Amino acid sequence: MKIRVGIFGYGNLGRGIECAVKNNEDMELAAVFTRRDPKTVSILTEGVPVYHADDVLTHKDEIDVMVLCGGSATDLPVQTPMLAEHFNVVDSFDTHAKIPEHFANVDAASKKGNTVSLISAGWDPGMFSLNRLYANAVLPNGADYTFWGKGVSQGHSDAIRRIEGVADARQYTVPVESALEAVRSGANPTLTTREKHTRECYVVAKEGADLAKIEKEIKEMPNYFADYDTTVHFISKEELQKNHASLPHGGFVIRTGKTGFNQENNHLIEYRLKLDSNPEFTASVIAAYVRAVYRLASAKDVGCKTVFDIAPALLSPMDGETLRRTML
Amino acid sequence: MKIRVGIFGYGNLGRGIECAVKNNEDMELAAVFTRRDPKTVSILTEGVPVYHADDVLTHKDEIDVMVLCGGSATDLPVQTPMLAEHFNVVDSFDTHAKIPEHFANVDAASKKGNTVSLISAGWDPGMFSLNRLYANAVLPNGADYTFWGKGVSQGHSDAIRRIEGVADARQYTVPVESALEAVRSGANPTLTTREKHTRECYVVAKEGADLAKIEKEIKEMPNYFADYDTTVHFISKEELQKNHASLPHGGFVIRTGKTGFNQENNHLIEYRLKLDSNPEFTASVIAAYVRAVYRLASAKDVGCKTVFDIAPALLSPMDGETLRRTML
Repeated sequence: MKIRVGIFGYGNLGRGIECAVKNNEDMELAAVFTRRDPKTVSILTEGVPVYHADDVLTHKDEIDVMVLCGGSATDLPVQTPMLAEHFNVVDSFDTHAKIPEHFANVDAASKKGNTVSLISAGWDPGMFSLNRLYANAVLPNGADYTFWGKGVSQGHSDAIRRIEGVADARQYTVPVESALEAVRSGANPTLTTREKHTRECYVVAKEGADLAKIEKEIKEMPNYFADYDTTVHFISKEELQKNHASLPHGGFVIRTGKTGFNQENNHLIEYRLKLDSNPEFTASVIAAYVRAVYRLASAKDVGCKTVFDIAPALLSPMDGETLRRTML
Repeated sequence: MKIRVGIFGYGNLGRGIECAVKNNEDMELAAVFTRRDPKTVSILTEGVPVYHADDVLTHKDEIDVMVLCGGSATDLPVQTPMLAEHFNVVDSFDTHAKIPEHFANVDAASKKGNTVSLISAGWDPGMFSLNRLYANAVLPNGADYTFWGKGVSQGHSDAIRRIEGVADARQYTVPVESALEAVRSGANPTLTTREKHTRECYVVAKEGADLAKIEKEIKEMPNYFADYDTTVHFISKEELQKNHASLPHGGFVIRTGKTGFNQENNHLIEYRLKLDSNPEFTASVIAAYVRAVYRLASAKDVGCKTVFDIAPALLSPMDGETLRRTML
């Protein structure tokens, strides 16, 4: 019997989940839920129903695990606890500072409804977090570095789009190669925000807009750009669509640390992702955790988990004996 | 109360465990067990007793987790099951092909003695295995590549030392940079053994030995060297001691894979280790799993585990709330 997966919210991530389900033989897409008129939403998979989000509870028995695909700012803080009371759920909540609060809310809902939930699956939080934890556990005496990119930051692109005179924009976060090399050398450098990443902006201006003013507003925007070396390129709408339509991303989690009775030996642990599609890779991580949540729920576990709580074997379609024989 | 760690076998790995225990604040070294005369074994830590291996069972109550530091060829297949009946144990058994058999033996012993055991901790098997599993679970459609080095292979160094006329030797396994680049490109190359690694040998010959014969014997040795491009350098004993005394190692686990409804997007997951000291890093991984085994035993779990069965949170000295707040 396949794991029946529900998708709640059908944007980039929802479509990514749809693809990931197709690529995992032990899963099947059971239904998609949308806040739009279901008749206007056409999905990639044939024969799978699209329902209105308001009707979700009437389809409780059709879904083994529901994947929440809304945004972390306003959707997930409400939706995940709401649905966790009735479904086993996985989300990709990525507002790092609010994870403890979100965890508490979802955990309470899961315990009330006897479900299993897992929050903050993806790559950061997610695979990057796992690598931070493993590397810290193995090398207690060391220093952590996370670099992002080269990749499109949706938050920064949105920030540019809100500037007067901007029609569209795409922002790339780029790790500084010399900073990466300094970290890899084991020198434990102290790096400022500016030294770690640069920001490249591709902006389509509205007709007659003041380009110099737009560029100044971007470069001086607090939190988003002011602390970085930022370059702004004005391009045509056509060029944006042709060369900047995809959503690549990735990055590096590095820990350097010392071992030995007198800390005499140096070690480097480096984890790197290079992703053509940020939402599809995020969805692929989520799919693996859907499998784990399904298994935990089948074993009558209850409550909210994160990637830290999941034994790796639960993520694989293989059984323990096969894993030990082929992957250990 | 600290975790009381015992070391069974005091060679390179045993000394590494001793250092790792010193570097983990929640652990303390309780005793070292040796097959040599304990009076002849001097350890780095002051005030810790060294006992004879034959007396190990009389010290059962002094040890929370015993780390087995013998070799995989003949020591661990006997020692780990023997001790797992009486102690919680961790070993670094690394004969990949014999892991299923070893697991079964240790599991039976642990279940008989109501202990927790964990086999094959280290970096390969160990951290590399984990990365193979995670990457396969996340990217079901893809290809795996493991590269080792640059680093000293003890097995290959030993094989050279067994040749007539050889006084000492050090063998480095070196990954081929162009093969690494081909893999990272996402081209999914099929690579032969020869294309992935080269082997560099530094050999001290005995006086009057036939160097040409030694070199030929090395290069034609089946399994060890015949399938590789091997270079042999004859050096003096002094040069070996000066430039080749340390045991560096490392390597790369790479998976490239495709996502998308029609497999249209490519992704790269790369995990890299660069280690000054192979035994000390192996020991550092083992120490983290000592913590996990101690916690599982405290929770009345029983039986043999591998790194695949251990939730990452169990490896960290931090509690779940702190991990979520600081590392997720």
